[in-house]
Amino acid sequence: MNLIALRGLPIVKKGDDIAQLIAHAANGQVKIENGDIIVVAQSIVSKAEGNVYDLREINPSPRAIEIGKKMGRDPRKIELILRESTEIVRQAHVLITRTKHGFVCANAGVDSSNVDEDHATTLPEDPDASARRIRERIKDILGVDVAVIISDTHGRPFRKGAAGVAIGVAGMEPLWDLRDKRDLYGKKLTSTIFAAADSFAAAATIVMGETNEGTPVVIIKGAKYKPGDGRATDLVRPREHDLFL
Amino acid sequence: MNLIALRGLPIVKKGDDIAQLIAHAANGQVKIENGDIIVVAQSIVSKAEGNVYDLREINPSPRAIEIGKKMGRDPRKIELILRESTEIVRQAHVLITRTKHGFVCANAGVDSSNVDEDHATTLPEDPDASARRIRERIKDILGVDVAVIISDTHGRPFRKGAAGVAIGVAGMEPLWDLRDKRDLYGKKLTSTIFAAADSFAAAATIVMGETNEGTPVVIIKGAKYKPGDGRATDLVRPREHDLFL
Repeated sequence: MNLIALRGLPIVKKGDDIAQLIAHAANGQVKIENGDIIVVAQSIVSKAEGNVYDLREINPSPRAIEIGKKMGRDPRKIELILRESTEIVRQAHVLITRTKHGFVCANAGVDSSNVDEDHATTLPEDPDASARRIRERIKDILGVDVAVIISDTHGRPFRKGAAGVAIGVAGMEPLWDLRDKRDLYGKKLTSTIFAAADSFAAAATIVMGETNEGTPVVIIKGAKYKPGDGRATDLVRPREHDLFL
Repeated sequence: MNLIALRGLPIVKKGDDIAQLIAHAANGQVKIENGDIIVVAQSIVSKAEGNVYDLREINPSPRAIEIGKKMGRDPRKIELILRESTEIVRQAHVLITRTKHGFVCANAGVDSSNVDEDHATTLPEDPDASARRIRERIKDILGVDVAVIISDTHGRPFRKGAAGVAIGVAGMEPLWDLRDKRDLYGKKLTSTIFAAADSFAAAATIVMGETNEGTPVVIIKGAKYKPGDGRATDLVRPREHDLFL
């Protein structure tokens, strides 16, 4: 399995066709082929889709002002976070919420890095749909069938540090159910479901770099995956099955 | 970044020198070089170190019998889990504990797959030390400096499916602190610590396969990482800083 960070992408602006930018940057650098996985950082998808907010235009609610005061944080950003969330999961030194998509993460994915001062991005409205659109446009432009993952980096309970996860998926099954497979001794494997899309996102995030390297797209070649119509929301553990809520 | 699953490893037995087995299998298949990362599945480290238990020799305590009855599970396995744990974190349809190393995971890593009937493996006694030994032996045998990660697969709160994590590390810093780095706009990144070792483990676990493919060792080439003396226990969020315990 080979991971290639795509160089030469421009800074993405609202309305940009990400598939077109990828196809253009790949030209002469890496041949995108059937079966490749294209991992795209959430930040550029949000920008292309216009999910960038000028905080000076955000009018924080009384609740956002109260939380902002308690946490010592910008109430306008708290307001954006609350708008993106269905539930506050933990409020301590960090604000962990469940996003409208179902993801549990810090700040509902609201992020002020890699945008102008006094601005913040939110997650794409429907990252699975974003992934599908990129996949379809790649098919249109290059004539190849790829899988697409929209990645974000999330902190984790119990473990330090953030790692890449899939928040949008197209063209693959994000979970592999191995429960009927057998081990080296021929015994049935019990309760083994593999978070494939998250693992691809985690791998791609290593080569993306988290800082200012400007490589928010990674092409994964030679990966075995299950083509399919799964969604990243399949990766969300239903609230009623979660032991930590 | 390129990930190569090492083929041709024998089934590992107690006392085996894993570095020697890796060097032998790699010969003619992949050249192990300075700067490579070798990811080794916990299961073969446990076997080589003799952490395999015959359940017929385990005498479950009254507490293990009680939990086993409640959960409908083998009390001998529960006994092993309790011996490996300092704390039960959640007891529902799964038993999630904190292991003596500090890791929070299902069944304290006690596993009956890929061993004989009526047997189970536990995690290595000190996986960081196991990683260091493999790293040193690779240096002895092949004369190259590599990083070594002992990987396991853990389930995650909030998200379905298991993914690879690092439970032992040698020759690298498992966490990258990016808090002083700047984004595309020159602004300081806030609170960005990247779980590098876990991400490498997650990536390697994709190509290992979870079933009977017999490729528990993956060589990662062309990866940027921070050489250092970090430990996988650095990845453990201290109990008092965890919001979900």
